[in-house]
Amino acid sequence: MRLTLIGFGTVGQSLIKILAIKKNELIKKFGLNPKVVAIVDSKGAAIDEKGIDPFKAIKVKQLKNSISWIEGIGHFGMSAIDVIKNVETDIVIEMTPTNISNGEPGLSHIKTAIFNKRHVITTNKGPLALALPSLMELASYNKVKLRFSGTVGGGTPILNFAKKCLLGDKIISIKGILNGTTNYILTKMHKEELSMEEALKEAQKLGYAEADPSYDIEGIDSACKLVIIANWIMNKRISIKDVKIEGIKKVTLKDVNEAKKRGNAIKLIGELNEEAFVKPMEIPTVNPLCVNGSLNAVSFNTENSGEITIVGKGAGGKETASAIIRDLIDIKFNLLKLYGG
Amino acid sequence: MRLTLIGFGTVGQSLIKILAIKKNELIKKFGLNPKVVAIVDSKGAAIDEKGIDPFKAIKVKQLKNSISWIEGIGHFGMSAIDVIKNVETDIVIEMTPTNISNGEPGLSHIKTAIFNKRHVITTNKGPLALALPSLMELASYNKVKLRFSGTVGGGTPILNFAKKCLLGDKIISIKGILNGTTNYILTKMHKEELSMEEALKEAQKLGYAEADPSYDIEGIDSACKLVIIANWIMNKRISIKDVKIEGIKKVTLKDVNEAKKRGNAIKLIGELNEEAFVKPMEIPTVNPLCVNGSLNAVSFNTENSGEITIVGKGAGGKETASAIIRDLIDIKFNLLKLYGG
Repeated sequence: MRLTLIGFGTVGQSLIKILAIKKNELIKKFGLNPKVVAIVDSKGAAIDEKGIDPFKAIKVKQLKNSISWIEGIGHFGMSAIDVIKNVETDIVIEMTPTNISNGEPGLSHIKTAIFNKRHVITTNKGPLALALPSLMELASYNKVKLRFSGTVGGGTPILNFAKKCLLGDKIISIKGILNGTTNYILTKMHKEELSMEEALKEAQKLGYAEADPSYDIEGIDSACKLVIIANWIMNKRISIKDVKIEGIKKVTLKDVNEAKKRGNAIKLIGELNEEAFVKPMEIPTVNPLCVNGSLNAVSFNTENSGEITIVGKGAGGKETASAIIRDLIDIKFNLLKLYGG
Repeated sequence: MRLTLIGFGTVGQSLIKILAIKKNELIKKFGLNPKVVAIVDSKGAAIDEKGIDPFKAIKVKQLKNSISWIEGIGHFGMSAIDVIKNVETDIVIEMTPTNISNGEPGLSHIKTAIFNKRHVITTNKGPLALALPSLMELASYNKVKLRFSGTVGGGTPILNFAKKCLLGDKIISIKGILNGTTNYILTKMHKEELSMEEALKEAQKLGYAEADPSYDIEGIDSACKLVIIANWIMNKRISIKDVKIEGIKKVTLKDVNEAKKRGNAIKLIGELNEEAFVKPMEIPTVNPLCVNGSLNAVSFNTENSGEITIVGKGAGGKETASAIIRDLIDIKFNLLKLYGG
């Protein structure tokens, strides 16, 4: 199984490291023998149909800041689109940063891959939030698989849980804390009585929040994830424009303290029932959904199995890489089914 | 797909009710068209190869206390073993009460079913806690499936979650609150400063604890579930004699209050690492595992995906019935794979 990696940051580097370490196990357990034939970053590409040495790739990237410096197989200035079109590959793994205004460059990468009959695994929420219904249709029409486990919950298998473990039951509604940064900030305000500014600064210092935290604070990141959940789990063909979004900007320490007196905590909640919305809500602290720090949590309200909550880290290189590996296994199994293997 | 139900209490009645209500959906989504051809309770049986009317069966059971009173098809005094041997069926669903001293009558029901090439779904922890490794071997040798989702977590898909949603990752250890009764008691002691006797009485009044609560209080029920988790998820071929068990009997209100001062709560924890044990432990109240009331929770410590916790109701007729339906779907899919359908 030949892989092309688009984007080579923390997640991409974790991915090829884990694939190398788990090589024998993946072959033995799943008949999965992935070979990375191309890696692209913002400055260029490396291509080797015999397979790129993962540790050499990581070393070059870390020393020289672009994979294109790798000896013999590096191509400075070569674009992702060129690589996707011209390098023979089975699966394109798209890991460029999320851009919510037009989804680019991820959206073009994904479309090009699908048009060229490559399966796609992505960790990029932008293209999905803007166009998931049409991307799913496009993939289905071109008879390729589109998977995106790592976009929601990092390594916590929220999407697959609902799809694989609740068969035969009906999910009535879904409610979750989908963003670790805002949860960290609200937790700090609740526990240590910090103001939002102070809590945000601390989150930035610890690397939980980016220099520009607006996607998190304004609820955009949570809304992207809600769109993905809606399409994948609930078969609701919505995009981000269908989500009512309110971020945490207006939440004051006073609000937090008053909620606390009522035995509640204010959390940024994404919810799917007849509507789809993201907004700060009071949750009883004894509710399993009311998790702290940068944790994520999602509760599924089911018809017969009761309310089931799944909690885990919502991000992380290694964690997101493990979600990509699950997608690889899933695609492999789907292909076996397709071809009767 | 012909079903034989052994045991016709809350779970069995919920099961045939849900199967009737979801009939069209199960056919459409899963090609699953189950027909109940026999039901057995402690006083006798009902047999109809054309399928037993579910609502008539429930009515007769509730009015006359045994299914064997059902007109035309009832057989007063007929035993489960007779029915399992002589009624043509595909799947035997064993739902008699747990007996941990020798596993009977469930153990004989399950063995007889397997010997007669019936697939088995059970909600009965006794036979599994005593003999799961050999029952799994027996089923495999006889080329039938043995499934038991409802034995751990009621409707919360704890067993399947670990099996289906963490593919490609490694579970290093598992830790859980596996018994709702003791969790209810410990929560009451923690929140309302009740003594254990008072909390137990309240649990009994509300139906969370049985008249003889010793299986729960002594940690036996948790240990049974830990054995099932160990075998199914961790491939550890252990039985209940391999589990170090300490119940909650010695936990005093003083212990609970002192833990509380440290920001912790005392919970009855079942844990699997190199060892398998059940004992009261202090857990930080902010830990996602630290759930309240009669909830169950299990945390999976994974190599790459971080720590993932799943929380839900641990029991209930409807909930456990939904776990049985998942097992039915799972067996159906496995058969399709087996016969290349």
